[in-house]
Amino acid sequence: MGTFTKKRDYSVIGKEIPRVDSLVKVKGKAKFVADFDMKDMLYGALVLSKRARGRVKKIDVSKASSLKGVRAILTYEDIPGENQIGEVVNDMPCLVPVGEEVRYYGDVISLVAADSLEIAKEAVKLVKVEYEDLEPVLTIEKALKNEVKIHPSGNILTSKKIRKGNVEKGFFESDFVIEDDFYAHYQEQAYLEPQGILSLYDNNYGITIYGSMQCPYYVQEMVPKVLGMSMHSVRVIQAETGGAFGGKEDVPSYVASQCALLTYHTKKPVLLVYSREVDIQTTSKRHPIKSHYKLGVTEDGKIKAVEITAHMDMGAYATLSPIVMYRSLVHAAGAYDIENVKVDIDGVYTNKVPCGAFRGFGSPQVLFAMESIVDEAAEKLRMDPMDIRLKNALRIGSRTSTDQLLTESVGAVKTIEHAMEISNYAELKKEMAAFNLENKFKKRGIGVSHIIYGISLGAAGQHLDAAGSLVQVHRDGSVNIHIGNTEMGQGAKTVIAMIASEALGQSIEKIRVDNPDTSYVQDSGPTVASRATVFSGNAVKKACEKIKARMEEYFSKTRNVSVEEIVFKNGAIKTVDNKHKILFDSLANECYNSNTKMVERGWFVSPKLRWNSETGLGEAYITYAYATQVVVAEVDMLTGKSQVIEAYTSHDVGKKLNPVGLVGQVQGGFVQGMGYGLFEEIKTTDGRITTDNFNTYIIPTISDIPQKLKIDFVEDAYSQGPFGAKGIGEPSLMPVPASIANAISNAVRKRVKRIPATAEYVFNIIEEVIK
Amino acid sequence: MGTFTKKRDYSVIGKEIPRVDSLVKVKGKAKFVADFDMKDMLYGALVLSKRARGRVKKIDVSKASSLKGVRAILTYEDIPGENQIGEVVNDMPCLVPVGEEVRYYGDVISLVAADSLEIAKEAVKLVKVEYEDLEPVLTIEKALKNEVKIHPSGNILTSKKIRKGNVEKGFFESDFVIEDDFYAHYQEQAYLEPQGILSLYDNNYGITIYGSMQCPYYVQEMVPKVLGMSMHSVRVIQAETGGAFGGKEDVPSYVASQCALLTYHTKKPVLLVYSREVDIQTTSKRHPIKSHYKLGVTEDGKIKAVEITAHMDMGAYATLSPIVMYRSLVHAAGAYDIENVKVDIDGVYTNKVPCGAFRGFGSPQVLFAMESIVDEAAEKLRMDPMDIRLKNALRIGSRTSTDQLLTESVGAVKTIEHAMEISNYAELKKEMAAFNLENKFKKRGIGVSHIIYGISLGAAGQHLDAAGSLVQVHRDGSVNIHIGNTEMGQGAKTVIAMIASEALGQSIEKIRVDNPDTSYVQDSGPTVASRATVFSGNAVKKACEKIKARMEEYFSKTRNVSVEEIVFKNGAIKTVDNKHKILFDSLANECYNSNTKMVERGWFVSPKLRWNSETGLGEAYITYAYATQVVVAEVDMLTGKSQVIEAYTSHDVGKKLNPVGLVGQVQGGFVQGMGYGLFEEIKTTDGRITTDNFNTYIIPTISDIPQKLKIDFVEDAYSQGPFGAKGIGEPSLMPVPASIANAISNAVRKRVKRIPATAEYVFNIIEEVIK
Repeated sequence: MGTFTKKRDYSVIGKEIPRVDSLVKVKGKAKFVADFDMKDMLYGALVLSKRARGRVKKIDVSKASSLKGVRAILTYEDIPGENQIGEVVNDMPCLVPVGEEVRYYGDVISLVAADSLEIAKEAVKLVKVEYEDLEPVLTIEKALKNEVKIHPSGNILTSKKIRKGNVEKGFFESDFVIEDDFYAHYQEQAYLEPQGILSLYDNNYGITIYGSMQCPYYVQEMVPKVLGMSMHSVRVIQAETGGAFGGKEDVPSYVASQCALLTYHTKKPVLLVYSREVDIQTTSKRHPIKSHYKLGVTEDGKIKAVEITAHMDMGAYATLSPIVMYRSLVHAAGAYDIENVKVDIDGVYTNKVPCGAFRGFGSPQVLFAMESIVDEAAEKLRMDPMDIRLKNALRIGSRTSTDQLLTESVGAVKTIEHAMEISNYAELKKEMAAFNLENKFKKRGIGVSHIIYGISLGAAGQHLDAAGSLVQVHRDGSVNIHIGNTEMGQGAKTVIAMIASEALGQSIEKIRVDNPDTSYVQDSGPTVASRATVFSGNAVKKACEKIKARMEEYFSKTRNVSVEEIVFKNGAIKTVDNKHKILFDSLANECYNSNTKMVERGWFVSPKLRWNSETGLGEAYITYAYATQVVVAEVDMLTGKSQVIEAYTSHDVGKKLNPVGLVGQVQGGFVQGMGYGLFEEIKTTDGRITTDNFNTYIIPTISDIPQKLKIDFVEDAYSQGPFGAKGIGEPSLMPVPASIANAISNAVRKRVKRIPATAEYVFNIIEEVIK
Repeated sequence: MGTFTKKRDYSVIGKEIPRVDSLVKVKGKAKFVADFDMKDMLYGALVLSKRARGRVKKIDVSKASSLKGVRAILTYEDIPGENQIGEVVNDMPCLVPVGEEVRYYGDVISLVAADSLEIAKEAVKLVKVEYEDLEPVLTIEKALKNEVKIHPSGNILTSKKIRKGNVEKGFFESDFVIEDDFYAHYQEQAYLEPQGILSLYDNNYGITIYGSMQCPYYVQEMVPKVLGMSMHSVRVIQAETGGAFGGKEDVPSYVASQCALLTYHTKKPVLLVYSREVDIQTTSKRHPIKSHYKLGVTEDGKIKAVEITAHMDMGAYATLSPIVMYRSLVHAAGAYDIENVKVDIDGVYTNKVPCGAFRGFGSPQVLFAMESIVDEAAEKLRMDPMDIRLKNALRIGSRTSTDQLLTESVGAVKTIEHAMEISNYAELKKEMAAFNLENKFKKRGIGVSHIIYGISLGAAGQHLDAAGSLVQVHRDGSVNIHIGNTEMGQGAKTVIAMIASEALGQSIEKIRVDNPDTSYVQDSGPTVASRATVFSGNAVKKACEKIKARMEEYFSKTRNVSVEEIVFKNGAIKTVDNKHKILFDSLANECYNSNTKMVERGWFVSPKLRWNSETGLGEAYITYAYATQVVVAEVDMLTGKSQVIEAYTSHDVGKKLNPVGLVGQVQGGFVQGMGYGLFEEIKTTDGRITTDNFNTYIIPTISDIPQKLKIDFVEDAYSQGPFGAKGIGEPSLMPVPASIANAISNAVRKRVKRIPATAEYVFNIIEEVIK
């Protein structure tokens, strides 16, 4: 049972705990939605728009209907509730009506359910849609002209701004002012498992939705609207989810609405799993962002002002863009203490795939731009890139670009120091110089980046920023935990089980974290924004502490010892003098027999944030994560092909809960960020995505991962986080595209202004250098 | 929206509310366990003992195994956990091992799962069991000799007693002492739907059990034991349940263990539904009780002492007998204020069907005896039966037979007064005398009875006497309610929805009470003992009140009005001055947007009861229901066939929550009690039940119900009940067998000492009269 002391040395927190869900996944027992196979189950399929823009004149389902095995073909006329949907703005039809426009190649026109997937696909081909062709708007530039209006209200949906200090004055006080344009392209989430939903009528007369998803509560809000039902009759349960990365934030709400409509009309279980092609063609991507940066610095490297204008390509529908933009806005000026900040950012409609949530949520694009312009400034000043970052870094007492005063947990400077230390930075520079002297056709560069990342939904989403839990200790001491945030591969279940184990004193083996089900806990917001650990973690910790307190009280009363003498640890309860001992399981049974309340709810609400949306100033997020990264990139000067050779990354996580889980997150974030920085590229023809599978849309493989990827953590505790933790999900990716772009720039002696920095692009800028 | 006042006039409570689950049941949409039909589902069947007693020598499954479509044949060797089970005492094998005894015709020896029910039944026939024949013990008398020991510890499992005052002294002070023997036979619960369970592996790697049941938590405790699993990996969900009456208290735990074993070994969903024959043959009945009563009364009708000995026939296993005995003990001396009480009751094993829970739980048998001996006393004293009851009735300040001081909610006397009033008692007696003068071969009699019934599990079960709830108000104002007590036809869902509607102020249409699922709320005890309204009702009320208080606070803060001015009613919120109005649904949405906790748990714990099991004295139950009944029975003097012509019944329910639901319960209880009183008779041959379907076991039909059944309620509020309510489930049946027996006795001028008072029995006592 180990040593029992009352001292707060953690028995689980901070230890390397294997993932609680690893075994079932490795053994193939985990049930993903495509594994569901129910009696009388039908298969769903979608009839999609084959135009980027056009008016639907006629939908002819007659041929398809007569196909044997087809059970339903639905159009807009079959929607019992609302057809006009959207997570933030209701600008999207669930099914495009006759007489209305399709707005991108991928708009859904009709739904099919059939006895087999083959029949469903065959029926899809037989549905004939007639269009009136209309000219599509395929670029931000064309959209901004507003000559062709994609939506009646015009092509700019919304604009956001920051007005901090006075940038004109800031530039005037600067010794150098640098300006440049940057462009960050699409990125596809490339989750292993495509979108999928199973819907069915349950035993209690309502509809139950199982699916691959990040945000069951979004689904639970949208499906009843489309079906014209009450929320209490729709229950949403997350199936095992094979990756999400933001791509399963709002999209599953649409998939579920489509699937539930088929169940509603057929009364049968319906399985709707997107093919990879349909998934890439129709579901949201990372937004392309065009930006213009203007930076003023003094001779000694102090950044005096930054002025930024940016345009986001939202695609055909708003989906989550307005809130993605909020994060772009807040992160546009990076991780620095700058007196004068001016940011303007517009969300622009185009007749292309709607963009939405993706790990980082509008941040990597602007962090890449900011970190590039800061590097340009360093070059101009002949300063080391680390020095300019250290000079301007945020510290306790600093104010962020939205004028938020930082009062705690600011590990920014430490991450810079650690990154330099673990990379042996000075030595690395020498090595690189030596390499470049020796090699003519291969050049290496060092790139650094330093980022900030807001944890939580922030001021713009604080109405959703709360989380619940339901903790049930059974009579035999085994524990069920229900939370509202999802495991999608990131390790949430493990961290939650660890928090519960620590807070209850029960062994982690006896704790089972169930998949979210909207019927257990209140709307706990989306599982995004690196918030699950803080929000669900706190909610679970609170509930466990309440139960433990009752068990402690019972133990104290029945053993006649003071609460202070009792230690709960690793499944056993003892007094410090070792006189009384009992297994947690046995004490649980005793507590049941005295009618002790052994099920508890936790509820954690975001600390209130003050925010002025007119000025873009205020408390943007509850806290921030910080990171600094050093990468060495090597560029083949004959082809432009680049690769990452070494990488060193230091992250301020507040408190390490599960070190092995953190490493996994940072490894994954690094690789995904590397793909974005180097070669993941969505290509389109007439608005249609042509890179719609992994043979054309290239993501990193194991051979692309640098052999040296050194990961470091800074612990600067956040008082509101569980045991001091912040979050790691997204911060892990944030520094990567920027550091890689800077490394390539450093290698080729020319600024990379576009990501991904593909071989073609890098070859072109090398050519310009040579010219 | 009606009138809004702050006054506590209820908007739902006390109104006649149609059952919330009536429509789905009438339409056939309600899903009972036999309606489940899953992909790859197997059908279970049982190999049963064909002996009342014998030793299993060999189980040969070879022939059965080779049958096509058979997927599993299990014996005791296939049990991964514990084979020795029992709800109170572990005296029962899940599957009888080779070398061990079968103890009744119905013990389970082997389990079969097959692709169809037909194949499963065929396989059952092919399993060959060899026995060594042993002499069975089929009567209480033989068991008491202890010559053949059914269990190693002997044939009396447990004995209970009451020692109040000094009966010898009481008899000495009496003017008359009357003694008699009584016998109450078996009764079969005769629920419409037989026992049935579906078990399957769920999506979260555990086992889920659906089934027809009263007590999901009993099942959740037993199945993991048999399977050798933790409780957090077994989830139990009540399917729609077509009647239970106690017969689904512990029995489903055994059925579920059998079914879950088949799922455990086949990894498939298994449906195990008992045929009516298997159900009647093997599952628990109301206990036969033989009793001897000795009553001392003074000339003026004061009962001075009562001495009772009773023996319960438990059958082969204890199941719930020890706690059934507790209730028999407490109720043996009836509803009277008696100074000297001595009760001795033994639980006796026999080689017959185990007896267990049945509406009234050991009470109707002893209440029949007590009410009979009290009637005998009245005859002796030439007192009217009502007068002797009034003379000895319990009042505030009285002490029950266990010496419990009654301090509130004692409507006993009022029920006597009301019963006399609604029956026009004096007039009725005259009418009957006139009828009997005119008729020679048909005689009528008036019978009265007056009963007490303990609400809650009582002192012996207080470690289980608590209940939880989970109330979830959704963003759109719709409400889900989870409780731990079951709807089995008694109307619990409706009462719970009413309580929630009243407590929240939301319309009842927006409230959905889900079937219990052990994963939502803590062990809430069994749904028995007429406790659901008080326990789950309070738990729901508490949770709703917490949510309402938060909504009130939010409304008050945002509208700047005091909480006192706000009225929640029927789905709307208003201020008393009508200045502010909002729909409940809209306020719920506002509350969500300010992160208000809108899901709550309630937890209600039984008030503590002091009890001395040595003397049988103390606080036996948290409160009591009372009833008085008058029936007119008509006896065909040539055949002995009796029927009830008129009935008048008055019940103290504390507070009427749903008057129409109460009437339904009393009607049902009356008819079931009448069946017990008149003709429901289990017959056995060599320990085997021969009346194993409804062609031989006769239950009342609509033509047996008296045309005049007048139902009255007394409201004497119970401070700990929701809105003052107590319970009605069992009290509705309690007075019936006694009043009918007394009416027949009155008609034939001879004491009925045995129920059911079948035609054969009554004919025999008429013959004795004639002789």
